[in-house]
Amino acid sequence: MNLYQKRIAQLRDLMKKHHLNAYLILSSDPHLNEYLPDFYQNKTFISGFKGSAGTLIITHEKALLWTDGRYWLQAERELKGTFIELQKQNNTNTFLNWLKKNLKKNEILGTDFSLLSLNLFKNLQTNYQIKLKHIDLISPLWKERPNLPISKIYEHKIKYCGYSRQQKINQIREKMQILNTQNHLISSLDDIAWITNLRANDIKYNPVFLSYLFINQKTILLFIDKNKIDSKLEKKLNRDGIYIKDYYEIYQEIQKLRNTNLLIEPTKTTALLIQYLHKSVKIIEEINPSTYLKSIKTQKEIKHIENAMIEDGVALARFFTWLEENIKKNECISELDIDFKITEFRAKSPYYISNSFATIAGFNANGACIHYKASKENFSYIKKNGLLLIDSGAQYENGTTDITRVIPIGQISKEQIYDYTLVLKAHIAISNTIFPKDIPMPLLDAISRAPLWKNQLDYMHGTGHGVGYFLNVHEGPQTLSYFSPALEKTKAKEGMLTSIEPGIYKKDKWGIRLENLVLNTKVKNPKNRDYGEFLYFKPLTLCPFESKCIDKTLLNEDEKLWLNTYHKKVYNKLSIKLKNEPKVLKWLKNKTKAIK
Amino acid sequence: MNLYQKRIAQLRDLMKKHHLNAYLILSSDPHLNEYLPDFYQNKTFISGFKGSAGTLIITHEKALLWTDGRYWLQAERELKGTFIELQKQNNTNTFLNWLKKNLKKNEILGTDFSLLSLNLFKNLQTNYQIKLKHIDLISPLWKERPNLPISKIYEHKIKYCGYSRQQKINQIREKMQILNTQNHLISSLDDIAWITNLRANDIKYNPVFLSYLFINQKTILLFIDKNKIDSKLEKKLNRDGIYIKDYYEIYQEIQKLRNTNLLIEPTKTTALLIQYLHKSVKIIEEINPSTYLKSIKTQKEIKHIENAMIEDGVALARFFTWLEENIKKNECISELDIDFKITEFRAKSPYYISNSFATIAGFNANGACIHYKASKENFSYIKKNGLLLIDSGAQYENGTTDITRVIPIGQISKEQIYDYTLVLKAHIAISNTIFPKDIPMPLLDAISRAPLWKNQLDYMHGTGHGVGYFLNVHEGPQTLSYFSPALEKTKAKEGMLTSIEPGIYKKDKWGIRLENLVLNTKVKNPKNRDYGEFLYFKPLTLCPFESKCIDKTLLNEDEKLWLNTYHKKVYNKLSIKLKNEPKVLKWLKNKTKAIK
Repeated sequence: MNLYQKRIAQLRDLMKKHHLNAYLILSSDPHLNEYLPDFYQNKTFISGFKGSAGTLIITHEKALLWTDGRYWLQAERELKGTFIELQKQNNTNTFLNWLKKNLKKNEILGTDFSLLSLNLFKNLQTNYQIKLKHIDLISPLWKERPNLPISKIYEHKIKYCGYSRQQKINQIREKMQILNTQNHLISSLDDIAWITNLRANDIKYNPVFLSYLFINQKTILLFIDKNKIDSKLEKKLNRDGIYIKDYYEIYQEIQKLRNTNLLIEPTKTTALLIQYLHKSVKIIEEINPSTYLKSIKTQKEIKHIENAMIEDGVALARFFTWLEENIKKNECISELDIDFKITEFRAKSPYYISNSFATIAGFNANGACIHYKASKENFSYIKKNGLLLIDSGAQYENGTTDITRVIPIGQISKEQIYDYTLVLKAHIAISNTIFPKDIPMPLLDAISRAPLWKNQLDYMHGTGHGVGYFLNVHEGPQTLSYFSPALEKTKAKEGMLTSIEPGIYKKDKWGIRLENLVLNTKVKNPKNRDYGEFLYFKPLTLCPFESKCIDKTLLNEDEKLWLNTYHKKVYNKLSIKLKNEPKVLKWLKNKTKAIK
Repeated sequence: MNLYQKRIAQLRDLMKKHHLNAYLILSSDPHLNEYLPDFYQNKTFISGFKGSAGTLIITHEKALLWTDGRYWLQAERELKGTFIELQKQNNTNTFLNWLKKNLKKNEILGTDFSLLSLNLFKNLQTNYQIKLKHIDLISPLWKERPNLPISKIYEHKIKYCGYSRQQKINQIREKMQILNTQNHLISSLDDIAWITNLRANDIKYNPVFLSYLFINQKTILLFIDKNKIDSKLEKKLNRDGIYIKDYYEIYQEIQKLRNTNLLIEPTKTTALLIQYLHKSVKIIEEINPSTYLKSIKTQKEIKHIENAMIEDGVALARFFTWLEENIKKNECISELDIDFKITEFRAKSPYYISNSFATIAGFNANGACIHYKASKENFSYIKKNGLLLIDSGAQYENGTTDITRVIPIGQISKEQIYDYTLVLKAHIAISNTIFPKDIPMPLLDAISRAPLWKNQLDYMHGTGHGVGYFLNVHEGPQTLSYFSPALEKTKAKEGMLTSIEPGIYKKDKWGIRLENLVLNTKVKNPKNRDYGEFLYFKPLTLCPFESKCIDKTLLNEDEKLWLNTYHKKVYNKLSIKLKNEPKVLKWLKNKTKAIK
């Protein structure tokens, strides 16, 4: 019996004791974060699977793990010997459909309601004939559980902030009045960090802190571990009308509400919190007003982001120059070195805070594993021939970056050049699109895929995700992914920041993904207003593509024009900063030469 | 007081008597048809508005009509003097949102449940705090109401049918077993006509008949006005296990059901029918199995459709030759003549049954009115310079057609050529797309719009609709419109027939729409199977585009290749049939010349 088999056996003993037919373990925490504090890695504790997305269902006979295409290869490897069945998640193979088919009427499904969104809870209650039971079976089993994170909370300097916290709270209160709501509870950490202009380091890569925020027209309460904040900052917050309460007091606080209503976002609030509400409290379900507000970057924020992009672009130019030089010298470089070096170059910036996600550096076959992460136990050296995919990004005080480029190593094949050019065509197709303001962005995704479809290729992930401002690297509501429904909240607004990152992944061969961050921007010379305003994607990322990998004969004139215009911009923005670094400048000049 | 003001006043008197706060009049009939029998033109009776889509809400103070962009110009004209407010329907301005905002809790909304889909009924019941009341206030007011249609029912010749009615019923019964359903009630007329291989002429342009069909594993009951069917056909149906009951007996029949379940499609079944069910009957809501089955054309049907397209193409070639000749001769031709002549040429085909919708022939400004129909009171002559838009189609025994072309008259301007070329680019962009099988087709729509968006233009209708087989010209579940949600039922399957019809409409100037019917077809040489099967849109419509209207410099090589390949096909398929008509053949040869 391996470790995970043992843990599952113990879990089943507890399930028996509590008369459960099945137990559901979500990749989740009380704030429904994308990346979880170690404390909440329940799925990994039980299964050993380390992918960021996945759902476990344990019954007395079976153990099943659902995860999406990004993680299938990884899951196959990590689940070996656990007897957990990998379920390749798609539109029809979901844990929800499994529950519908396999649990009988009135059978009992246990799960921890403090990790279950209200939305999912209501779905399970309404559309399934099973009984749901709130129970935490992980805590009793997990003896050496890590502590909750306790990073220090600090202010996001006001010179970088689009608005002061008072201005932001005023905006939210206005929206609350429009929605006719007396109280508002926010559980999502990016929203709270944005509203309060505070940052911390509770979750790797996300500069946020575990907290809840409660707002009404009189009071603002911030629920955090009080040890995280110094008295000076607390006093400053008090002066701005924000009072600190202990993290766990949130339950008592909302229990007190009577004969009023409460605005919450049902996908970002747990079922457990809602169960604490008195029955006289009406729940108003809406997207958090702050989620909309922060998705639309202000002119001031955009200026800062453009500066952060220059910081990032300079670091990347230096890194790629270093890489080319050392590859030429036949230095022995591994994927781990890439991560180390690219971070080192970025960290030189005075604005640098941390990386914005775990660097993906995948050589050849590793690049085909969409969310590959090299580890000491499992990495490759970059040698001989092939393609090196590097997806990386950073948190700067003045912006969040996320970029993917693919580097040719040694001799590359015609097929590799063909694939790279196709991905570039897909990248340009969507980058070059003009689209109506207010179109749900998922509807644009197909424009990016069309050039790949022509070659009967595709990628099993979205074309792009929203990006925060010195906040989460994945931050909606905007999304360029047609896997997401085209909801009201996904409508394109001016000032939204999104990634564009089509790809081709050839199992056991190579992976190619080309990613820029782009800003929804008004077209300069509106032609007519009969069809409303139009927007375009202004690329903010500053880093050349690889002309060695491009088959020019496959590009049409429009595509060449886009590429040359982009490269000219990259050169102009970065060259001033690299005046005194002739080697890097030479690299930049060479890489941004116009294609004819 | 005009006629409609008077009728609204009478309606309000009845509303008072029945204590209604508002009365809802839908464009609807008991079969939730798109085109209504005259008997059910309630909306027109009350408001005078003749557009095919529209919803009226009458309160004691207000009278409001919602209709979509296709009908705004027409509605403005037809509502003059009625005091009915036109509501320009879009995603947010809908009658449902109006009800939510303007009707107070427990206020009473009356409507005729025999015209209300179960879906809409449930939505109103669940998400609105109003009270719903079933009441028909139109019948008491409408003294000279037309009769229900009583066209004769006839068989669709078996040589044209993809399957016999027994085969079709077996397929449905199989699907019912998979869905674990004992009984199935079908209210939608296209489904019933398809299953029974029967046709009639109850609804203009749709070769269907008012009916319900009830199927279980033992019995098949067809509910129709018995006068519509002769005894010979009835006996034949009896031999195939189908028994005839009177149209209105459906209510008694379903009232009899006990302790069983019933499969219905909630968007195609009225709330009134469901209210007749005994409480022991469980409702299973699914799309009608026949809707899926008939959307996927069989190889035999496809052959026939291709032949129907030749019939249509020959008629069109003759018509356009006639038109050119007579325009040149300065003959005085009106939009009404166009309708008459194009029908005359089509009717020469031995396979011709009727038109498949009302011909749209709109010269210049009239072409900008998306669903324009010339009438004796309101039409234009085709003279001097401009663009003539002709959208027309026919029902042949072996297929349904729908095509739009735009014809240059006299001298046309640079702007007109530019617009025509843009629409052609949009048409080619989507026609030339290869796409994954099973992609929800609404997600492809943006590919067609992208070339127009580049010029800050758009069209306020879907890019395409599903098409029946000698059945309704608008027939889902497939749809190429991103106004429709990307539901499971919209997934692309091989054999689906759809229109592609992007457009540009310049108010008071001209309208351009270019429409072909296309067939979802497997790509010939599948390259790899890692991303599943891919499909492409094979154009079936056979009619040239207008080279005079095309600015070749705006077309790239791919676009020229598509156009030349299409024109070659059109020439090859039609020229054989036109051997003995030198004038028409010359016209065809000239119009299908390759562009360089």
